[in-house]
Amino acid sequence: MTAYPNYGRIDGPVVIIGFGSIGRGTLPLIERHFDYDADQMVVIEPNADMHTFLSQRKIRHLQEKITRANYRDVLGGIFKDGKGFCVNLSVDTSSLDIMKFCRELGVLYIDTVVEPWEGFYFETTENAERTNYALRQKVRDEKAASPGGTTAVSCCGANPGMVSWFVKEALLTLARDTGRDATPPANRAGWGTLMQGLGVKGVHIAERDTQARAIPRPRGTFVNTWSVEGFISEGFQPAELGWGTHETWMPENAHSYDTGCQSAIWLERPGAITRVHTWCPTPGPQFGFLVTHNEAVSISDYFTVGPADAPDFRPTCHYAYHPSDDAVLSLHEMFGSGKQQTVHHIMEEDEIIEGIDELGVLLYGHEKNALWYGSRLSNAETRDLAPYQNATGLQVTSAVLAGMVWALENPDAGIVETDEMDHARCLEVQKPYLGPVEAHYTDWTPLQDRWELFPEDIDETDPWLFRNVLAS
Amino acid sequence: MTAYPNYGRIDGPVVIIGFGSIGRGTLPLIERHFDYDADQMVVIEPNADMHTFLSQRKIRHLQEKITRANYRDVLGGIFKDGKGFCVNLSVDTSSLDIMKFCRELGVLYIDTVVEPWEGFYFETTENAERTNYALRQKVRDEKAASPGGTTAVSCCGANPGMVSWFVKEALLTLARDTGRDATPPANRAGWGTLMQGLGVKGVHIAERDTQARAIPRPRGTFVNTWSVEGFISEGFQPAELGWGTHETWMPENAHSYDTGCQSAIWLERPGAITRVHTWCPTPGPQFGFLVTHNEAVSISDYFTVGPADAPDFRPTCHYAYHPSDDAVLSLHEMFGSGKQQTVHHIMEEDEIIEGIDELGVLLYGHEKNALWYGSRLSNAETRDLAPYQNATGLQVTSAVLAGMVWALENPDAGIVETDEMDHARCLEVQKPYLGPVEAHYTDWTPLQDRWELFPEDIDETDPWLFRNVLAS
Ligand SMILES: NC(=O)c1ccc[n+]([C@@H]2O[C@H](COP(=O)([O-])OP(=O)(O)OC[C@H]3O[C@@H](n4cnc5c(N)ncnc54)[C@H](O)[C@@H]3O)[C@@H](O)[C@H]2O)c1
Ligand SMILES: NC(=O)c1ccc[n+]([C@@H]2O[C@H](COP(=O)([O-])OP(=O)(O)OC[C@H]3O[C@@H](n4cnc5c(N)ncnc54)[C@H](O)[C@@H]3O)[C@@H](O)[C@H]2O)c1
Repeated sequence: MTAYPNYGRIDGPVVIIGFGSIGRGTLPLIERHFDYDADQMVVIEPNADMHTFLSQRKIRHLQEKITRANYRDVLGGIFKDGKGFCVNLSVDTSSLDIMKFCRELGVLYIDTVVEPWEGFYFETTENAERTNYALRQKVRDEKAASPGGTTAVSCCGANPGMVSWFVKEALLTLARDTGRDATPPANRAGWGTLMQGLGVKGVHIAERDTQARAIPRPRGTFVNTWSVEGFISEGFQPAELGWGTHETWMPENAHSYDTGCQSAIWLERPGAITRVHTWCPTPGPQFGFLVTHNEAVSISDYFTVGPADAPDFRPTCHYAYHPSDDAVLSLHEMFGSGKQQTVHHIMEEDEIIEGIDELGVLLYGHEKNALWYGSRLSNAETRDLAPYQNATGLQVTSAVLAGMVWALENPDAGIVETDEMDHARCLEVQKPYLGPVEAHYTDWTPLQDRWELFPEDIDETDPWLFRNVLAS
Repeated sequence: MTAYPNYGRIDGPVVIIGFGSIGRGTLPLIERHFDYDADQMVVIEPNADMHTFLSQRKIRHLQEKITRANYRDVLGGIFKDGKGFCVNLSVDTSSLDIMKFCRELGVLYIDTVVEPWEGFYFETTENAERTNYALRQKVRDEKAASPGGTTAVSCCGANPGMVSWFVKEALLTLARDTGRDATPPANRAGWGTLMQGLGVKGVHIAERDTQARAIPRPRGTFVNTWSVEGFISEGFQPAELGWGTHETWMPENAHSYDTGCQSAIWLERPGAITRVHTWCPTPGPQFGFLVTHNEAVSISDYFTVGPADAPDFRPTCHYAYHPSDDAVLSLHEMFGSGKQQTVHHIMEEDEIIEGIDELGVLLYGHEKNALWYGSRLSNAETRDLAPYQNATGLQVTSAVLAGMVWALENPDAGIVETDEMDHARCLEVQKPYLGPVEAHYTDWTPLQDRWELFPEDIDETDPWLFRNVLAS
């Protein structure tokens, strides 16, 4: 990758909200792949530590928080000509409000998560309202209420985001490998039917992050490879998953919905302490945490065949996340002490001495049992590909790039999720940044290697029931 | 500690069975503190890797496994004159059989765990028989059947072992600090009454091991600070705990006994995946694993007041173990993959770059809430104190030393547990090897800092109920 493709011109201001690990990693990709007026770039970031970095690069730094009270003034001031691109990579800013306002203004918009305003995650007392289902449904309702118009891409990071494109690529791979027609379907109905026809029962967003430093994790510090704040927030949301039509049993602490897309259920338990049995190429079988994610709801929704409340087919879908070992220890410490660590650290690309972020989708239950399809990007390779980020970061920022390219090419697509975008075009843009993107079949199932000496609540009639996936 | 006290002469052979991390660490303490005929020292160890070390020191190495079939021949041959000391520091050898045989011969005996013959831990199918309760009860039955005679010290390591002496020292500390009579009771009944009178409801064997290396734990390797094999075996035994009279609720998966000392219950769940809320001075509140240990049963038994089947008072007692971070990750990997790692590694004193083994007893439920009393030995200090071991090792081997001294001084005490020994004398011998031995009060209880947003199965009428200690 020596000559960087140019994906066209962004007219008007390019605004990055939030200059944390993802914002810093996205900047060089925007600089590299788009034309725009450099003096119209603005970074809105309350953290003063970022000032020097930005001023060295002559990038305007608006050192303040975007809030419910000021977002219209601040963004309205910058986007006064009704053009430009708003790239929201911040925590604690309402994706929905900002997206609506950008569409009002005619400004393109992208984010990587349906983020709520500050306070939401820990001050909301009703768990049903703290779910990603609830957050996402509001965006879907807005899409239904205001169809079309200026493009706003919702949840276009690695996951949510890229993994939705992987699901489609994995389906085509599976179709090809089982001797079926592998022509990409033209629409959502076609994709749902393809998945159903292939016999896929569900999808794990199966991730293993092996990035590590040469120093032991310091006690009292939450160490992660991306936003600590973001991970803690979602980790304390209820565990949540898209709920497939093949499931025959539900956990006692589960709740379903009778409004909205009805694709998901949530459990009365924090996701980051809820373990599931899953599989990735590097470790083989491993525990993942059932952390709630937008894509669990959106993928199960997108591939539903038939009516929302009585589908003919719907896949189970959830995150099964083995974060870096330091993050596993950080969670153990946090839940064990009952307190969030006050010191947060995101591992930097320069201190990481080994490891990859292996992030893919595990399509299971079909005639070839299970297929993992994903990116196995190492930190070492990342350092050659783009500056200011580790492997986890680049999987996210390159998805942001792809989403921005797609938005520029499709400026009037309205509010879209990554499931609704052209997965082939997006992966074409993103792939140079993903390291090895591979398909791996496995004969592992969640019933393999269970405790022999202790009873477990399993159902052997179908290895791929969530009852068997949920760890004892 | 420059002039090492000499604790007298061992007549006859000194036999060390098992030359793993504990055997290697015990050797220099025996050499340092006893008179004996150096050419009568024998180490029985099947691992050929130990040969050079032993031959450099001109120590006879019997390179074989002690088995059910050969133990009488092998040990009978060595101890043919009916004197000497058998120091059993091996896995997979029956403590009970070897102890009985040594007593038959008139040979002193010590071990650090009631170890069964090879195969027991994973081939026994009835969980009730795989418990430490079952293992210990057989030793107690043997003691009852053959009272007195040659001394055999059962379970005299750090824990089980030293912690039983700490419980007594902590009780005296608490008596003193609450203005009560702090004269050591003369017998078991007195100790039970003292604990009851102080209002102690229970005891955590509360340990935090912070020893760490400068390299990330390699995948597929179980890393620990002492026997990996021992830890895996006990970790897969059912969780088990001494069951106090203040408990009002029992987990659904609990089982109690109607024979034997009846002091304990066991849960249908591996101990090393069962988390409890506990407290140590360095981390404050933390998760510990409810790994079964002999002392949980023995301490609850020893301090029982009244009849075994209807006691007036009995403390709850269990292990609450936060092993080294690498061991936490090893457990996470093992349970997640469903397979034991085939590569085992015990961290060596030279590769450990930081950390301590903080091992103590947390006496809770009394008028000063909770008192932690224990050793906070660092690896750095350990290296100054004795060779061939890390901090974890030295806490164990110095307890073996103390137990050997006590046995030499009390050669006809029959089968004893550490609860039944003179705790003051034993700690006098051991203390120079324990680093800071400290008492810490805390106002923490298991009800502090629980999840606000999720329901938990707790009972707020008494913070110190096991129901609150067991983590959700
Ligand atoms: N979809 C994905 O794959 C994916 C992956 C990683 C991160 N994310 C999301 O991306 C976002 C950023 O992640 P990160 O790793 O860069 O996080 P980070 O914690 O490193 O950075 C967040 C930044 O936002 C800033 N910020 C906080 N409040 C703000 C406000 N009100 N206005 C403007 N800026 C504010 C913070 O100062 C910080 O610099 C998070 O929401 C995270 O959940 C998504
Ligand atoms: N009470 C305590 O505080 C405490 C603490 C640590 C260890 N322990 C116990 O001490 C014992 C030794 O621990 P370690 O850390 O040295 O273990 P280790 O795994 O390092 O060493 C065990 C040694 O026993 C040898 N061995 C195996 N089978 C044998 C046999 N049949 N005959 C003779 N030797 C045999 C092995 O080759 C190995 O060298 C274990 O049983 C462990 O549970 C007790």
